[in-house]
Amino acid sequence: MTKLEPVLGQIESDFGAAVSRYIEFLTIPSISTDPAYKDEVKHAGAWLLGEFLALGFTARLHETPGHPILVAHCEAESPDAPHLLYYGHYDVQPPEPLELWESPPFEPAIVDGPHGKRVVARGAVDDKGQVMTFLEAFRSWKAVHGTLPVTVTVLIEGEEESGSESLPGFLSQHAASLGKAAIAIISDTNSWDIDTPAITYRLRGNVYAEVTLEGPSRDLHSGLYGGAVVNPLNALTGILGQLHGPDGRVRLPGFYDDVAELSAEERQAWAALPFDETALLSEIGLTQSVGEAGYTVLERVWARPTCDLHGVWGGYTGPGSKTVIATRASAKLSFRTVPNQDPAKILQGLRTFLNERTPPDCKWSIEEMGASAGILVPSSGPFMQAARAGLADIYGKPAAMIGCGGSIPVVGDVKEKLGLDSILVGFGLADDRIHSPNEKFELKCLKNGILSHAAILARMGEL
Amino acid sequence: MTKLEPVLGQIESDFGAAVSRYIEFLTIPSISTDPAYKDEVKHAGAWLLGEFLALGFTARLHETPGHPILVAHCEAESPDAPHLLYYGHYDVQPPEPLELWESPPFEPAIVDGPHGKRVVARGAVDDKGQVMTFLEAFRSWKAVHGTLPVTVTVLIEGEEESGSESLPGFLSQHAASLGKAAIAIISDTNSWDIDTPAITYRLRGNVYAEVTLEGPSRDLHSGLYGGAVVNPLNALTGILGQLHGPDGRVRLPGFYDDVAELSAEERQAWAALPFDETALLSEIGLTQSVGEAGYTVLERVWARPTCDLHGVWGGYTGPGSKTVIATRASAKLSFRTVPNQDPAKILQGLRTFLNERTPPDCKWSIEEMGASAGILVPSSGPFMQAARAGLADIYGKPAAMIGCGGSIPVVGDVKEKLGLDSILVGFGLADDRIHSPNEKFELKCLKNGILSHAAILARMGEL
Repeated sequence: MTKLEPVLGQIESDFGAAVSRYIEFLTIPSISTDPAYKDEVKHAGAWLLGEFLALGFTARLHETPGHPILVAHCEAESPDAPHLLYYGHYDVQPPEPLELWESPPFEPAIVDGPHGKRVVARGAVDDKGQVMTFLEAFRSWKAVHGTLPVTVTVLIEGEEESGSESLPGFLSQHAASLGKAAIAIISDTNSWDIDTPAITYRLRGNVYAEVTLEGPSRDLHSGLYGGAVVNPLNALTGILGQLHGPDGRVRLPGFYDDVAELSAEERQAWAALPFDETALLSEIGLTQSVGEAGYTVLERVWARPTCDLHGVWGGYTGPGSKTVIATRASAKLSFRTVPNQDPAKILQGLRTFLNERTPPDCKWSIEEMGASAGILVPSSGPFMQAARAGLADIYGKPAAMIGCGGSIPVVGDVKEKLGLDSILVGFGLADDRIHSPNEKFELKCLKNGILSHAAILARMGEL
Repeated sequence: MTKLEPVLGQIESDFGAAVSRYIEFLTIPSISTDPAYKDEVKHAGAWLLGEFLALGFTARLHETPGHPILVAHCEAESPDAPHLLYYGHYDVQPPEPLELWESPPFEPAIVDGPHGKRVVARGAVDDKGQVMTFLEAFRSWKAVHGTLPVTVTVLIEGEEESGSESLPGFLSQHAASLGKAAIAIISDTNSWDIDTPAITYRLRGNVYAEVTLEGPSRDLHSGLYGGAVVNPLNALTGILGQLHGPDGRVRLPGFYDDVAELSAEERQAWAALPFDETALLSEIGLTQSVGEAGYTVLERVWARPTCDLHGVWGGYTGPGSKTVIATRASAKLSFRTVPNQDPAKILQGLRTFLNERTPPDCKWSIEEMGASAGILVPSSGPFMQAARAGLADIYGKPAAMIGCGGSIPVVGDVKEKLGLDSILVGFGLADDRIHSPNEKFELKCLKNGILSHAAILARMGEL
C-alpha cells in the first residue's frame, strides 16, 4: 500500500465534513472591493487562519494597506523534501445583480445538476472552493500520516478581486522566506471538462490604454462648421478603424516582431483537444469566429496577440439628435500580449501608430493603464511532471496542457518577486458562472480537486 | 421726396422709443423648451399681439398643441400691391449656464462696445431683436403714411427653439389664407458684417441617424474571447472610419450623384467676399481647415454635402480599465445635404453602406432622426431684386449673397405647405453669441434692420 492510498480513503470518508466546512467558509461575504465589507473580508481570513492553525501549521494574518494576507507553513519531516508555495484568495466578487440569484449568494444552496450535487454561492469556485481543494488535501495527509510529504507554504490573499494591490509589495518584503519554495502551485483555473484535468501553462498579458483626441477648442455646430474643420470623432474612428488589417492582424509597428511562435507539438496537441467551437460560439449568439488568419480559435485566444476596443465615447450620446462637432473623442483599448512580447514596446508602438496619424491641429493624450507580459510556464521539468502524474492518478487520463487568453497577475508577480515558476492546476468548469449570479461548483469537482492535490503532494514527495 | 424718406426720418426720431419697446419685450423669459415658462411664453405672444393690434393690424394668437402662434394682417390700400408673409419667433433659448452672464439674461443691459451701444439679454438678437426690425418698420410706415405699401401677413411662432413642432401642421391648416402671400420674408439670419448686409439664399439640409451594431449576445471578457470573436466596437469604428475617403469625400454610394454643382458666378462671388479664414479657425483653436479637396472653406460649408459623427458610444466608459468586449456599439451621425440631393436617397445610401459591411453574426439597427433637403432660393426675380435694392438703399453697398451651412426648417415648411420661396434677410452678427451666455445685439444693427425693412417695403411696393 502506498502512502497515498489511505489518504484518498480518508478524503472519501471525510467528504461530508469537508463540504460542511466549505459551506461555512462560503457564508462569509468577503467582498473585497466594497469598503462596507472590510470586517467580513478579515473574518474570512481569520476563519482560514483557524483552519491552518488547527492542522498544525504555523500561520499568521499579515496586515497590509488593504486586506490581510494569510501565510501558513508546515515543514516536511525530511529536510530534503521539496518546498511548495500554494496560492489562493479568500475574497470574492460583489454578488450584484442580486435579483438574478436563485438563492441568496451568501446562503450556499446544494442543488441537483447533471453532474450530481452542486453548491450555488458567491465564491463557490472563485476562489474559496479551489482553496478548499488543497486545504482538505493537507488535512487528510495530516490525519492519516501526521505530516505532509513536502514542505508547504500557503499564501492566501484577500484582494484578488480588487486588483491585488498589496500583493507585489508583500512578496518583495517577504521574498527571503517565501522565495525558499521551489515552485508555486496556483488553484484558480479550470479543468478541461468535468472528466479531464488540465494544467494551464500559457497566459496572455495585457497592455491597456485610454486615448483621447482633442481638436477644436469648443464644441461646434455641424451646420456652421461641418465639412471645413476637423471632427475628432470622425478622426478617432478613422484611426482606430486602421488598427486591424483585412487579415485580422494588428497594425502597430513591430507588433509581431517578438511573438513566440507556437511549436508544431503545441499546435498538434491543441488540435487534438476535444474542442467544440460551435458550442462556444452559439452560447454567445454567434455562428462563426473572427480573427487573425491562419490560426485556430484556441491558438488565437491562447497564443496570439490581439487588440480590442473596450469603450469608445465622445459627443452627444443622449436621446434624440444634436448636431454637434465635439471637441474631443476617447477610447479605451487593450492589447493581449503573448510570451516574448515586451509590453513597453507595444505601448511605444501604439504611441507611434497614433502620432503618425494625428490630424492637423489635434493632439493626443494617452494614459497607460497597466502593462503585463504573456507568460509561458515550462511544461516539462520534475515539478510539472509530478503535477501531471498526480492528476493522471486521480482522473485516469492525462491532463490537457492548455493556455488561457486572460492574464493571472500573481503568476507574473511570483516570477518577478520570488523567482518562482507556477503550476496552474484548478478544478473549475467553464459554466461555473464566476463573477456572475448563481456561481456554482460541482461537488464532483471539489472532491476530484482534493484527491488531485493529495496525489500531487504524494508525487512531489517522491522527487 | 420719396415716400420712404420721411419713414426713415421717423425711424431715426422714434429710435429711442423703439429701443424702450424692444427692451420691454426682452424682459419676458419666453423659454419654450421649459414647461415652467409656459405662461411667460404666452405672455410674450400676447405682448406682440398688443403691438400689432395697436398698429391697426388684425391679429390673433392661435392656440396650438404647443405654444401659441401669432398671425397679424394688414391690407395695403392698393389691391394690386404685393402680399408678403413675414416670419419670426418670440421664444428664446434657455439662458443656462447662468453664472456666465455678466448681467441677468432677462434684465437687458445697454453697454458700450466697439460699434457703440449694444443690448445684452437672452433673445437680444435671436429672434426678438430681429422681430423688432420689421415690427418697427411697419410702425414707422403707419405713423407717416397711415398705411403700408404692400399687404403684410405676419406669422410669429413661440416654438422655434424647441423644434417648431406645431408649425408645419398650422401652415397646412391655414394654407388657404397664408398661401395668398407671394413670398416669405424671414429675419433670423446674419449680415455679412456690421457694415455689409447679406441675403442668405442657400441652406443645407440634414439627414440624421442613430446606428447600432449588435454582435455577441452578452458582454464578453477580452482575455477569454479576444481575438476569436467579433468585437462590435472594433467593427463599428472600422466601418465608420470608411465613411470618408482620403480626399475628404463621403463614400456613401451615389452620394454626389445629384449634387447641384456651384456655378462659376457663385464661386467668383464667394471668392470675392472679404472672408478671413484664419480668424474663423483661430477663434476655435485651429490653424488649418480640413475637408473635401477642391473646394474653399465657404464652398464646403455652404454648398457641399458632408458627414459628421455627433456621438459614439459603447462598452465601458467609466474610470479605470475594464477588459470587456461589449455586445453593441452605437453612433449618431448626420449628412448635411445640398440642393437637389434627395434625403431619402441619402438614407438609403447609408443603409447600403452599412449593410455591405455588416460583420458576420452582427446586425444593424438604424433609426432615422430627421431628413431635410438643401434649399436654393432663386437669387433673381422681382422680390429678390427689391430686397437687394432696399438693403443697398440703406447700407450704400450691395448685399452679400451668401449660403448657410445649417438648415432653417421654416424655409422648407413654407415652401412645402404654402408653396412660397423665402428671402432670408437678417441683421445679426457672427459674434452675437446666440444660444450662449451674454447674447447681444448691436443697436446699430437694430436700427439698420428697421431702416432696411422700411426700404424693402418701399421697393416691394413699387413692384
